[in-house]
Amino acid sequence: MTEHPRPFIIGVAGGTGSGKTTVSGRIQEAVGPEHIAYLQHDSYYYDHSHLSPEERARCNYDHPDSLDTGLLIQHLHSLCRWQAVEVPQYDFARHARLAERQHRTPAPVILIEGILIFVERELRELMDMRIYVDTDADIRFIRRMQRDVSERGRTLESIVSQYLTTVRPMHLEFVEPSKRYADIIVPEGGNNRVAMEMIVSRVQAILARR
Amino acid sequence: MTEHPRPFIIGVAGGTGSGKTTVSGRIQEAVGPEHIAYLQHDSYYYDHSHLSPEERARCNYDHPDSLDTGLLIQHLHSLCRWQAVEVPQYDFARHARLAERQHRTPAPVILIEGILIFVERELRELMDMRIYVDTDADIRFIRRMQRDVSERGRTLESIVSQYLTTVRPMHLEFVEPSKRYADIIVPEGGNNRVAMEMIVSRVQAILARR
Repeated sequence: MTEHPRPFIIGVAGGTGSGKTTVSGRIQEAVGPEHIAYLQHDSYYYDHSHLSPEERARCNYDHPDSLDTGLLIQHLHSLCRWQAVEVPQYDFARHARLAERQHRTPAPVILIEGILIFVERELRELMDMRIYVDTDADIRFIRRMQRDVSERGRTLESIVSQYLTTVRPMHLEFVEPSKRYADIIVPEGGNNRVAMEMIVSRVQAILARR
Repeated sequence: MTEHPRPFIIGVAGGTGSGKTTVSGRIQEAVGPEHIAYLQHDSYYYDHSHLSPEERARCNYDHPDSLDTGLLIQHLHSLCRWQAVEVPQYDFARHARLAERQHRTPAPVILIEGILIFVERELRELMDMRIYVDTDADIRFIRRMQRDVSERGRTLESIVSQYLTTVRPMHLEFVEPSKRYADIIVPEGGNNRVAMEMIVSRVQAILARR
């Protein structure tokens, strides 16, 4: 077990709707998903199933305290010791953790994605490459709205209300300032071919050396 | 001659004092200067030797019109046809073009550096990779001041006056908005090891393929 070199840890951050998931998907496609253990900070939301539906809807899901970052850090340490982990699954429609967990096997590259992953110093400092996906706020809102309507069955009114009361203020308070910790900033996300080729070249060079 | 593939053109932009020259230097060191034809937009300042010293000092050297971008574009086309070019040299202390030009031989990678290289569409669209070096304005001012005192023999008063009357307004009007055309944004410049490794990996992958 111990002859494995420490995995190379990549973090992909950026505001809601910035294109983080597309960037992460492109990296996995290009490098080969078998070389990458992919973790989303989103999976680590604390369970809110003990709250009423109204209370759940009012929760601030964009504050760092709503996520079990300690568990994500533990999982990273396990994957670095080349041990598999059981990742929680979160149901965004019900705001609750599912009973079943997802098995993640170790790999030479770990890819972590989330809006708030550069906020906590302990998590941030585990990363070897910090990528911030930067997209204009209006475009991000439009993408989020389209996703929440089609995938999460939310109403327009609830989307706008959540955006203005928590998503946007938390973005300005936590996400935007965490851009300062990025090693590179990628405008427009996964459709930025030049940036994607640069990131993929670097990851391939690292894998080739191992 | 014609069997050479078109060179890969990299642009490095960013405000005064952002660290562009350090980034360009690191790329040349890591990739090998023999593979790179390096051009600075600064070399293409129009000659101001017909003006009095007072008039020269009052010129707006941070406006795109002060640079002979047409000649730079011609030189890029020549280098793309694998023809050498004679690059003008500019004396920043006297605000005048030197009589002697510098010979630049073609190479598989062309690296262009300058604060305003993303502003003109024709120039920008020749580039295969656009890098914007992004550094906080106070740090940039401090670096510029130190350079202008030590290398260009200017007084503190003239540096501040030039900064407030032309450098800063032109930065806000032209340089900062041109960040939008970057493929990647590199915070802090040449000392950003992770970003430098990513850029160099990509350039090495391109050279290896040729």
